[in-house]
Amino acid sequence: MITLWELRGKGGRPYSLFSWRTRMALKHKGLDFASQPVKMSDKAAIAFSGGKTVPIIKDGETVVRDSWKIAEHLEDRYADKPTLFGGEIGRGVTQAFNTWVDRVVVPAMMPVIVADVHERVDPGDETYFRQQFEGFLKCTLEEARTRRPHALERVQKVLEPLHAAVKRQAFICGSAPAYADYILLSVLQWARVTSPPDIFDSSDPLYGWRSRMLDLYDGFARNIPTA
Amino acid sequence: MITLWELRGKGGRPYSLFSWRTRMALKHKGLDFASQPVKMSDKAAIAFSGGKTVPIIKDGETVVRDSWKIAEHLEDRYADKPTLFGGEIGRGVTQAFNTWVDRVVVPAMMPVIVADVHERVDPGDETYFRQQFEGFLKCTLEEARTRRPHALERVQKVLEPLHAAVKRQAFICGSAPAYADYILLSVLQWARVTSPPDIFDSSDPLYGWRSRMLDLYDGFARNIPTA
Repeated sequence: MITLWELRGKGGRPYSLFSWRTRMALKHKGLDFASQPVKMSDKAAIAFSGGKTVPIIKDGETVVRDSWKIAEHLEDRYADKPTLFGGEIGRGVTQAFNTWVDRVVVPAMMPVIVADVHERVDPGDETYFRQQFEGFLKCTLEEARTRRPHALERVQKVLEPLHAAVKRQAFICGSAPAYADYILLSVLQWARVTSPPDIFDSSDPLYGWRSRMLDLYDGFARNIPTA
Repeated sequence: MITLWELRGKGGRPYSLFSWRTRMALKHKGLDFASQPVKMSDKAAIAFSGGKTVPIIKDGETVVRDSWKIAEHLEDRYADKPTLFGGEIGRGVTQAFNTWVDRVVVPAMMPVIVADVHERVDPGDETYFRQQFEGFLKCTLEEARTRRPHALERVQKVLEPLHAAVKRQAFICGSAPAYADYILLSVLQWARVTSPPDIFDSSDPLYGWRSRMLDLYDGFARNIPTA
């Protein structure tokens, strides 16, 4: 059995962006896991990992932290299960995609949803969250909320290059989903679980892609309480 | 023998961005080809293809146009040669990368080099090139030149997410180059062959990656007359 340390917000909602990559990767591999919820501010709870962030997994005696390293661990240890990368070239290009999502899509999404996320973190994390994210964004959460329309335009512009990709093929990874799809889904699931207004309307080419992703594994990502 | 229709500029320089993807893919597969240079304005010369742009290849009796379709053709027909995509997942993610490069990196690079490109197209294409690109950019070539410093900052910002990727691995595709590397190289080779100032200084993480790419196949891309 694998244990997954991940953030839990109000009402137990699993809202951690990067942990969703791990959740989907575990489902893809057909591996059961037990969730170990932690507060964002409780660094003592995850000090055993040697780091300060989730996701972390414990797989037998092996502890792995960082969503990318976890994906590589799962791919290598469970090589007989469905592949996340499809080989070395797929792994390389997926790593470049991972970098692009982390450096471009995540920072574009954050100001859109940050004030809503704050309302849905564990009550014990509210002060910590505000400090961290106001420092990161260099504005108050309330200012971020007033700027949401502009931020929404920006994230839609950043995602626009992917429209052509998902018009040509059902998933980022081709005719079936794999890890690059989970990377992108994680950002949209983060928004979905924490922020009431939808990022997409139904005419957006990524709306259909996200629906297909939410259907996977008996609606695993869909059947989570949303904002 | 495969024939490749591609743009030729002053002094026979092969400056066509998209044709460089095909050139590198052919080298990767170890396939010989004969170049068939055409002027950008001479649509009659390529009307046989059913389209108005290069690259086009004729492989036996099969005509294929569009660099992506050519890559898929080469991968499928020459499946016993080194792979460009590494399987279906790699092909899917590479297609998404291709879309990102075409919609984000190419439009960012164009205003940086466009005035220099104009000086190196076939003399018979100068008027056509100016019309096409001034329409596209909505400014004159001379205005584009004065805005080059700003455009250069923009293209460097757009490429920044890839820095972390090429620090973790030697190539976009991992430990060895494949088609996603050729997609990115094509944009930098377009700049290199047409515009004297280098886009990178030697401290740029992509400088080392580009050097490795230019070394491939006995310096195939390096040993082309540059601007």
